[in-house]
Amino acid sequence: MTDVSIKRLNASQRDFDSALSALLAWDDSVDHQVNESVRHILHEVKTRGDQAVLEFTEKFDRLKAGSVAELEMGQERLQQALKAIPQDQRVALEQAADRVRDYHERQNQTSWQYEDADGTVLGQKVTPLDRAGLYVPGGKAAYPSSVLMNAIPAKVAGVGEVIMVVPTPDGVVNDMVLAAAAIAGVDRVFTIGGAQAVAALAYGTDTIPSVDKIVGPGNIFVATAKREVFGVVGIDMIAGPSEILVICDGKTDPDWIAMDLFSQAEHDEQAQSILVSPDAEFLDAVQASINKLLPTMERSEIIAESMGSRAALIQVADLSEAAKVSNRIAPEHLELSVEDPVALVEEIRHAGAIFMGRYTAEALGDYCAGPNHVLPTSGTARFSSPLGVYDFQKRSSLIGFSAQGADRMGRVASVLARGEGLTAHARSAEYRIAGESNE
Amino acid sequence: MTDVSIKRLNASQRDFDSALSALLAWDDSVDHQVNESVRHILHEVKTRGDQAVLEFTEKFDRLKAGSVAELEMGQERLQQALKAIPQDQRVALEQAADRVRDYHERQNQTSWQYEDADGTVLGQKVTPLDRAGLYVPGGKAAYPSSVLMNAIPAKVAGVGEVIMVVPTPDGVVNDMVLAAAAIAGVDRVFTIGGAQAVAALAYGTDTIPSVDKIVGPGNIFVATAKREVFGVVGIDMIAGPSEILVICDGKTDPDWIAMDLFSQAEHDEQAQSILVSPDAEFLDAVQASINKLLPTMERSEIIAESMGSRAALIQVADLSEAAKVSNRIAPEHLELSVEDPVALVEEIRHAGAIFMGRYTAEALGDYCAGPNHVLPTSGTARFSSPLGVYDFQKRSSLIGFSAQGADRMGRVASVLARGEGLTAHARSAEYRIAGESNE
Repeated sequence: MTDVSIKRLNASQRDFDSALSALLAWDDSVDHQVNESVRHILHEVKTRGDQAVLEFTEKFDRLKAGSVAELEMGQERLQQALKAIPQDQRVALEQAADRVRDYHERQNQTSWQYEDADGTVLGQKVTPLDRAGLYVPGGKAAYPSSVLMNAIPAKVAGVGEVIMVVPTPDGVVNDMVLAAAAIAGVDRVFTIGGAQAVAALAYGTDTIPSVDKIVGPGNIFVATAKREVFGVVGIDMIAGPSEILVICDGKTDPDWIAMDLFSQAEHDEQAQSILVSPDAEFLDAVQASINKLLPTMERSEIIAESMGSRAALIQVADLSEAAKVSNRIAPEHLELSVEDPVALVEEIRHAGAIFMGRYTAEALGDYCAGPNHVLPTSGTARFSSPLGVYDFQKRSSLIGFSAQGADRMGRVASVLARGEGLTAHARSAEYRIAGESNE
Repeated sequence: MTDVSIKRLNASQRDFDSALSALLAWDDSVDHQVNESVRHILHEVKTRGDQAVLEFTEKFDRLKAGSVAELEMGQERLQQALKAIPQDQRVALEQAADRVRDYHERQNQTSWQYEDADGTVLGQKVTPLDRAGLYVPGGKAAYPSSVLMNAIPAKVAGVGEVIMVVPTPDGVVNDMVLAAAAIAGVDRVFTIGGAQAVAALAYGTDTIPSVDKIVGPGNIFVATAKREVFGVVGIDMIAGPSEILVICDGKTDPDWIAMDLFSQAEHDEQAQSILVSPDAEFLDAVQASINKLLPTMERSEIIAESMGSRAALIQVADLSEAAKVSNRIAPEHLELSVEDPVALVEEIRHAGAIFMGRYTAEALGDYCAGPNHVLPTSGTARFSSPLGVYDFQKRSSLIGFSAQGADRMGRVASVLARGEGLTAHARSAEYRIAGESNE
C-alpha cells in the first residue's frame, strides 16, 4: 500500500472559504430508480399488508416464511442470544446500556402548569409516544451499539412499545444485536428489513402494529422509505456521511490523532475526517503517523479511500480561529484535543457532540460514555440535536380560562381576530365576555 | 342560504372505525407542476441570487425594484406602522405579545453537566440558532398573530437575528403585520415572498443572509419550497388543514359550540370541525345553532363548504369514549367543554393544544393566551409538538474523560468496537488505556 496524501489547507489562504466549501460538498443527488422502487414497495405493503411483506422478504432476504408471525422473534430468543454471546461482550453491553440509560434519564421532561392572577391556567403536558419502531441494519453492518442508542431513549421516555425490525438475509442472525435488544428492553422483534419493513411500521399490517415514529439507520432504500412515510409517522433525521473534526494544539500524540481520524474514515468511503491545528509541524507529524499506521489497519482500503478523497489537515493561526472553522463546519463529532478544553468549548456554537481533552476519543462516545451516538451530520448541527428522550415525547399545550380571564382576554382576542378578518374567531371569544354573551 | 347538514356518526355503529378514517382522509397528493415550478425557482435563486429574486418578485408580485436592498424595510418603517395602526390594535398586539413571551420564557432550556466517580464529565450544552427566517404570507391572508407566534419564541430562545420575509403584491403593505414585527423584535424585513423568498433564506444572496431554519406558514409554493430546502436548513412542520375537536358534555350553550366550530371552518374549505358528545339532543341543538348562525357569518360560504364536506357530530357512550375517539384523531385543537376538564385531560394522550372548560374558546389560544398557535395537524400530534423555544435551540453533547475514566471505559469501548469489526475505533480507545498506549 502506498502512502495516502491528505489535503492541506490554511485558513489564511485567500481562497480558503471556497476551498472549505468544496471539501465539505458531497453528492446527495436523488436516485430516481431507488425512489421508484421504494414507492412501489410502500404501495404494495400499504395495500396488501402481510402478504406483500412476505413476498419482499423472500425476494430480498431469500427468506421464505408461511406467515409474518413466523418472522417474529420471541423474548426467549433474545434471552438465548444474551446467553450465547461471550461473557465480556455481555458485560460490555450491560455497562454501556447502564451509562446510556443514566445519561438519558436526565433528559426526561416533566409537565408543568401555572396560574395567572385571573385564575387562568397555562401549561404543557408531556406524554410519550404510544409506539416507536426501530430499524436495525442486518448482515455485515450489524451494530448492537445502535440498538442501545435508539431503544434506550425510547424506553426512558416511557414509550409503550418499542418494535424492532432487523433483516436476516439468508437467515443469518447476529446474536450480539439480539442481546442488545434484550438489554435495551425492546418489546417485539420482526426479522424483516428494507423499505418493506419501514412500510409495515408506518402503515401497520394484520401482524405488525403501526408505530408513531421510526428511528434508526439504514441503507439508501431504508432512508428513502423513511423520507416518503414522513408525515404518516415521525422519523429521526436522515443521516449523511459521518464526520469528525479534531482541533489539536499540537501536544497530543500524533498516533492518537491519526487513529481518531481513522475511526471515522473506517465507516465508509464518504466519511470525512478533518484535523485543525495551529501547529504546522504537528500536521506533518500526523501525516507521518497516518502513513505509518495505515498498513496496520484491517479496513485500510476504506480508510485510504475516505482519507484520500475527503480528509483534510487545516492550519490555523490559533485555537480561536480553529473554533471559527469548526463553527463554520458544524461537525457531527468534535474533538477538542487541547490543554484547556473547558475554555475552548465556550467558543463552540455548533456541534453534535463535543469530546473534551486528550483522553476523550470519539470511540468512547460512540459506545459507552452515555450520550447518544446518533448525531446531526453534514452541518445540520447548526439547527438540530443528538437523538434523545425528547424525540420520543411530545408536548400538548394546556389552556384553561376562568370566566374572569376569558372576559379580559376575550377582548384582546376580539380586536386581533377582527383585525385579521376572522369574525367567527372574534364572536367565539366575544360570547365569553360578560354581558356580551347571548345566553 | 340553505341549511348545512353535518355528518352524524355514532361510536357504537359497526363501521365507526372506517367511517372515521374516511372522515379524516384528505387529499395531500403532490402537484407535479408546483414541484417543477418550485425547483426551477430554487435553482435560479441558488445560482443567480439577488438578480433572480428581483425577477421573480417583479413577475409574481408585480413589484419592480432596482436592487434587493430597496426591498428591505428598515426599523423606522416598522415603528411607523406601529404608530399608524389604531390604538386598540396596538394595545391588543402588545398584550398578546407579553403573554406569549411570558409563556415561552418558561420553555427556555439550560445547559447542564455532571461528573461521575472517575472524574468524567458528561452534559449537554444548549445554544440558540444563529439566524432564523420567518415567512409571513402577504395579501389577503396576512396574520399579525402569526408574526408574534413565530418570532417571539425565536427571540426568547436567543436567536441572534430573525429575518422576516413578507410579500407585498402590487406594493400593498399590511401595517398590522409590520407593527407585530416591531413588537416581536424582528431584526430585518424583506418584502419578498413565494418560493423565491424561501430560496433566498436557505441559500443566501449577496443582500439576504442565509438562515439556519425557516418557519412560518405559506401557500403550496412556500410549503413545497420549504420541503425541498429541508436539510440545507431546518424547517418547522409542513401544516395540513387546520382542525378542531370539541368534546362537550352537553351543558355548554350550543351557540358557543357552533361558533367554536365555525372559528375553525372559516379558515378554509379543507378545515375540519368535529364535535363529540354523549348527548344526542345536544348534537341536535348544535346542528340547529349552526343553521341559525350560519347566515350571520361574514365567511358563511367557506364555513358552509367546510362544514358540509368535512365536519362531523359524533355521538359517544360517555366522556371516556369521547377521549378515546380524540386520541384516535390526535387533533390539532381540542376543546374540553365539560364540567370537570381537569379529570378528562388525564385521559388525553395526543393533542396539539388542549382548551379546558367552557370559557376557553380556541380563539383565545389562537391570539393571546400565551401558548403557541402553530400546532401539529392531521394526527401528527401523535409524535410532534407545538412550535416553541425548543425549535430555536439545539443541544451539543459534552463528554470529557479523565485519564482514569478513559482507562476504565476504553476497555468497554474496545470490546464493543471489536464486536462490530471496527478496529480503528477499538485502537483509538485502547491508546487511552494505561499501559496499552504505544507512547
